[in-house]
Amino acid sequence: MPKVEHQNSTLLTDDELRTLDAHWRAANYLAVGQIYLMANPLLAEPLTPAHIKPRLLGHWGTSPGLNLVHTHLNRVIQARDLEALCVWGPGHGGPAVLANSWLEGSYSETYADVTRDAKGMERLFRQFSFPGGVPSHVAPETPGSIHEGGELGYSLAHAYGAAFDNPNLLVACVIGDGEAETGPLAASWHSNKFLDPVHDGAVLPILHLNGYKIANPTVLSRIPEPELDELLRGYGHEPIHVTGDDPLQVHRAMAGALDRALDRIELMQRTAREGGVAERVRWPVIVLRTPKGWTGPAEVDGEPVEGTWRAHQVPLAGVRENPDHLRQLEAWLRSYGPEELFDSDGRPGADVLACVPEGDRRLGATLHANGGRLLRDLPIPPLDAFAVPVDKPGATLHEPTRVLGSLLERIMEETSGRRDFRLVGPDETASNRLEAVYRASGKAWQAQILQVDEHLERHGRVMEILSEHLCQGWLEGYLLTGRHGLFSCYEAFVHIVDSMVNQHIKWLRTSRALEWRAPIASLNYLLTSHVWRQDHNGFSHQDPGFVDHVLNKSPEVVRVYLPPDANTLLSVADHVLRSRDYVNVVVAGKQPCFDWLSMDQARAHCARGAGIWDWAGSAGGDREPDVVLACAGDVPTQEILAASDLLRRHLPELAVRVVNVVDMTRLLTREEHPHGMSDFEYDGLFTTDKPVIFAYHGYPWLIHRLAYRRTGHGNLHVRGYKEMGTTTTPFDMVVRNDMDRYRLVMDVIDRVPGLAVRAAAVRQCMADARTRHHEWIREHGTDLPEVADWAWSG
Amino acid sequence: MPKVEHQNSTLLTDDELRTLDAHWRAANYLAVGQIYLMANPLLAEPLTPAHIKPRLLGHWGTSPGLNLVHTHLNRVIQARDLEALCVWGPGHGGPAVLANSWLEGSYSETYADVTRDAKGMERLFRQFSFPGGVPSHVAPETPGSIHEGGELGYSLAHAYGAAFDNPNLLVACVIGDGEAETGPLAASWHSNKFLDPVHDGAVLPILHLNGYKIANPTVLSRIPEPELDELLRGYGHEPIHVTGDDPLQVHRAMAGALDRALDRIELMQRTAREGGVAERVRWPVIVLRTPKGWTGPAEVDGEPVEGTWRAHQVPLAGVRENPDHLRQLEAWLRSYGPEELFDSDGRPGADVLACVPEGDRRLGATLHANGGRLLRDLPIPPLDAFAVPVDKPGATLHEPTRVLGSLLERIMEETSGRRDFRLVGPDETASNRLEAVYRASGKAWQAQILQVDEHLERHGRVMEILSEHLCQGWLEGYLLTGRHGLFSCYEAFVHIVDSMVNQHIKWLRTSRALEWRAPIASLNYLLTSHVWRQDHNGFSHQDPGFVDHVLNKSPEVVRVYLPPDANTLLSVADHVLRSRDYVNVVVAGKQPCFDWLSMDQARAHCARGAGIWDWAGSAGGDREPDVVLACAGDVPTQEILAASDLLRRHLPELAVRVVNVVDMTRLLTREEHPHGMSDFEYDGLFTTDKPVIFAYHGYPWLIHRLAYRRTGHGNLHVRGYKEMGTTTTPFDMVVRNDMDRYRLVMDVIDRVPGLAVRAAAVRQCMADARTRHHEWIREHGTDLPEVADWAWSG
Repeated sequence: MPKVEHQNSTLLTDDELRTLDAHWRAANYLAVGQIYLMANPLLAEPLTPAHIKPRLLGHWGTSPGLNLVHTHLNRVIQARDLEALCVWGPGHGGPAVLANSWLEGSYSETYADVTRDAKGMERLFRQFSFPGGVPSHVAPETPGSIHEGGELGYSLAHAYGAAFDNPNLLVACVIGDGEAETGPLAASWHSNKFLDPVHDGAVLPILHLNGYKIANPTVLSRIPEPELDELLRGYGHEPIHVTGDDPLQVHRAMAGALDRALDRIELMQRTAREGGVAERVRWPVIVLRTPKGWTGPAEVDGEPVEGTWRAHQVPLAGVRENPDHLRQLEAWLRSYGPEELFDSDGRPGADVLACVPEGDRRLGATLHANGGRLLRDLPIPPLDAFAVPVDKPGATLHEPTRVLGSLLERIMEETSGRRDFRLVGPDETASNRLEAVYRASGKAWQAQILQVDEHLERHGRVMEILSEHLCQGWLEGYLLTGRHGLFSCYEAFVHIVDSMVNQHIKWLRTSRALEWRAPIASLNYLLTSHVWRQDHNGFSHQDPGFVDHVLNKSPEVVRVYLPPDANTLLSVADHVLRSRDYVNVVVAGKQPCFDWLSMDQARAHCARGAGIWDWAGSAGGDREPDVVLACAGDVPTQEILAASDLLRRHLPELAVRVVNVVDMTRLLTREEHPHGMSDFEYDGLFTTDKPVIFAYHGYPWLIHRLAYRRTGHGNLHVRGYKEMGTTTTPFDMVVRNDMDRYRLVMDVIDRVPGLAVRAAAVRQCMADARTRHHEWIREHGTDLPEVADWAWSG
Repeated sequence: MPKVEHQNSTLLTDDELRTLDAHWRAANYLAVGQIYLMANPLLAEPLTPAHIKPRLLGHWGTSPGLNLVHTHLNRVIQARDLEALCVWGPGHGGPAVLANSWLEGSYSETYADVTRDAKGMERLFRQFSFPGGVPSHVAPETPGSIHEGGELGYSLAHAYGAAFDNPNLLVACVIGDGEAETGPLAASWHSNKFLDPVHDGAVLPILHLNGYKIANPTVLSRIPEPELDELLRGYGHEPIHVTGDDPLQVHRAMAGALDRALDRIELMQRTAREGGVAERVRWPVIVLRTPKGWTGPAEVDGEPVEGTWRAHQVPLAGVRENPDHLRQLEAWLRSYGPEELFDSDGRPGADVLACVPEGDRRLGATLHANGGRLLRDLPIPPLDAFAVPVDKPGATLHEPTRVLGSLLERIMEETSGRRDFRLVGPDETASNRLEAVYRASGKAWQAQILQVDEHLERHGRVMEILSEHLCQGWLEGYLLTGRHGLFSCYEAFVHIVDSMVNQHIKWLRTSRALEWRAPIASLNYLLTSHVWRQDHNGFSHQDPGFVDHVLNKSPEVVRVYLPPDANTLLSVADHVLRSRDYVNVVVAGKQPCFDWLSMDQARAHCARGAGIWDWAGSAGGDREPDVVLACAGDVPTQEILAASDLLRRHLPELAVRVVNVVDMTRLLTREEHPHGMSDFEYDGLFTTDKPVIFAYHGYPWLIHRLAYRRTGHGNLHVRGYKEMGTTTTPFDMVVRNDMDRYRLVMDVIDRVPGLAVRAAAVRQCMADARTRHHEWIREHGTDLPEVADWAWSG
């Protein structure tokens, strides 16, 4: 690694020191006020229980540290005219970030009723964690935020996501020492091997060691400092320490540390951008050690509080009932000198505001935290150039994800100047057959590159690391700051980010209700290498339950698509990449799959989301069906068509209707989901009284959960994956889970009343075929030739 | 940190070198054979396509490295008479671990038909990844395994779990450089701050840098070695490097590294155990750099393969069709010299077996990997001493988890000598009100301890770290090696381990079908700080979907309990702690909750899993109900009882039945779940024709998914959490989600036909109460006094 020189050049003037401290004290005052007060915000009169909120909620412990960071970021933003964003990992310290936003004025600009005066201050206090008010954490409601911070672990990944392709942006990221113990955060440090100093902005991690979590010390605060330094250097960072509990000394040290870090970043970026140096260097990290609950009560009821875990939430819990606590609270609040900080109308004084930057430079007003305002439409070319030709259904085979790869290649190419599209995946882009994109962009990589490597590129926009957490976190940060992307993932392992997607859906649900937040690009999943085709890996790689997981969440945000072939995948991809404020889950195979629909047919089918495939059944025209064969997903569609084929051959008098579902939420009612079908539509597709044999890609009961309100639900019989997984052949997988063509035909015969006597013989014939399969596979290890060679007869 | 002296004392004799290499070559031969061959296992005749499997599956890339580690572990186990277990992180390299088990004889002892001769070798080869055979990964079927390795990230946490309270055990853990990129693995390194050198065994991580994942280089193999060393030192380890591609040189280096590491471990343990030194020292880690696919084809079709990502799975893919590939495969197999390694009957020769340990010392035969064989019943005291007295229902309040805490304290105490019970949780034991356990055991902690700290203890068995992944991984490792435990977790954040629990359930599902695997203690979750009571944190902390997640999995493994009060929680805890081979999810509140049932009643109720609470309704005796009020969960139970109260007061003529469900799987049919109710039972509780108003703890549609086959399903109306979360009061949460008492009464009135005209007025009165709530809370920020003060009238 080349050396980067830097210098410690900061000497704060007394004036600067005074104003910085005033800002910090004001923010601390406002944080405490939010937790405790519902009246008397300026302490114009002595505190009484009537001024105190009935329920004391919120997190004080982290707030003074966050306020310190915010104050000092203000200083350097102003001094250096920086474009900056801050990710507040300890987002549960909502009072701090709200306090700063109110101080700088961005809060009042966003919420006109919370004015920057005494009345507004009272509102700010009262609304905090109050029913119908604002949440206790940093949240979508908080100006300048892209990160909630309630579920810990994702701050640093979000920060990197925000920095990618934002060359002029500084993303500061406060990482609590609690959060630092989580897996996703521990992995995120290595994101610097993927940060391009030329086209990306900088990430400045600020590891805040306040020593305690809810009830325990933290690991990183209790290892020797040299060991911590080795760890951070091992992560590829150069540590800069700020330690103390004396405010003025800490202000000086923090100012020096930030300048040193920013000088170093500037130099690194200049070296890479002007000097063309491609070698990785150590980015700075600030290690900030200050007491938990700093400046709060040192002791309460004889127990130490400041500097311990007892400061985590509400240090003085009995303020309304206990006069001692009330007195202590008043002394605490007055210790910040509110009368020096705010005028009699509650407006912050000039000293307090001296460090606050102007306009969009304010952390609460940056457009990067309201990414929709920066978002441009993605240049998606017309699909026809990428479509596979389909003259008749089922005559040709394509790998759907490979076909999609060519579309993604073009999008990657079209955005090579704008750099606002990224493809992320855990080491699986090629495995998922999307490798065409490499022709338009290599894989981002700042570590060593060897001769033998392929497609690694210092400036690449394909992101691959063996961490679903990082893929998800990077992409979330990228989208929230106004760009586009797609996450391709093995279906089973997307469960690794179940909890992350929960939080992102919550974020979007809340954001959509905020007029000032502009819509952002949807978070798009391509789930492939799916449950039915895990020939190499077997049971551990088989799980289709992510669809179930997301369908529990807010219906206005969640969409699920199961395109059955290559052209429907193109159509769905086109749709989801254009959409806004959704989480779209697309499940599609990478293995050769029959082409069923032409591009035009695919577009029409996907627009409806579910429809009758007349050509695949025998019920067309005026003929009412005796049975509906329904399917969702590529493998189920193939088995349903093969079953229809068998039925047409063996029981030609039976009127079979085939229905394919692409958009799973169409099965819900309109009341339950915006895409839901009316009962009229549903009954038109599935009938109210005929047996419906439904082959579904995932857990069969999901279909019941979606359709239980429908009239014909009692006739619905679903086949799907029921955990009978292993390393085996594709057809054996469907047989083990009773979703094979033979079983489906037997299901039809078992459920359609009044069939010809001959049906019993046909049923036996199907049962025999299953037996034949079992014998054949045990002997040969491959699928029956009649299955392997099957093609649609239509 | 004190210094630990160690020495590099190993000089292998030529004989040792020869025999170690013979063992390694034999294992490599057997690994390749499993991937390719279905006949001619000893190459007695020239290879022909007929000897080759029709589907070539499996992972070669990691296999030679795993074989090297296994060979050398054999040596030190034998030389030092070690009790050892190995966790194979790259478990997808199944062929390697299977090969070693077969060589040492443990495979044939477990599976008598796979004998240690030519015939058995052919079986071993053929069954691998063959339909109906064995999975391609290390799996429950693999002797000596406790770790699947398909989903990457958990090896090191599993290894620590196995080492806790196993003072004489060495747990080696191979970590692939792919896996090392995951979050859970990155966090796991810090587990050494929780490993007690006195009462725990040792973990020896072996970081295997073969340089590539599926298609990419790995981060840790591409940072400079000094940076990697800083990282490992920062993790608290002392790195020992083994690098090379010349087998004999690597054998020498590996033998030396293992001896150095084991000497150091021995010294560290002796110092702590005999010297009583409590200060943390750096445990050794071995960094093994060898080529991916080492000893495999250097080039295939002109492309480099050995030492690149192309060696990941099957390096020669066209062996059946391409004579060149076939020739290359034969040369590759013959390069190991099978004729020197196996006799003409296929039995491994003396050289090959020279390093293999005896009996239980063999890695494939250790009892620690079949933990059920070591498991002792947990000493659970009679519950009555912990029960809360209940003379009449709803007259007193207790915090259920606090009551449970006393039971756990006693169990912790009773196991203080045996040390086979641990409580894990992400920094939440006290927050979840289980802190009574600290009286019996402190919190494990090997880092710095300060005066102000409480309950930290070098030998503690309560485990707290802010990582759900580590809690889960540690506990899994602990249980799989034959001990007991409980994981207490915030309900929302248990989704962080969705994917881990998937894998554990799969493991148990498969294990249960293997006669030789003895049942292990169940994995027990206590989910608390649940969705309805997130007063401090709000929306980000609200998610009841883990129940839905686990109920998608194998029904023979999964159990879900929602005890409605303190005594039912005790009864459920008693049951789950005694159970075997399950994943038990228990959801219970930590807030004060009415006591409904005495201990005897609780026991009887929990044994039934669901039952009528006669005292809570008005339908008792011969009177048939007009409506069933059903509930599952503590908050829903309270609201249902409050609704019943209101109905009895306002519509006394209405016959109300109250049904409480503790065991959620009872709602399923018997065909779907072993706990499922017969239709006769279900109809007896819920009727076939009366409206059922069901208040459920989680997402309402789960109840429909469980009960859709029941006759009365059309009359079932479920209320539950529907993502209307925020920071607010407890009652406002139920109002926002339409599960409050007033709404439930309205539901009853809307659904029971033929009610008196007066019912309309009652309905209006309920609607008014909801309006009153909205006004009151906006004004006061608290719940209506009539709600806050409500108590059961019965």
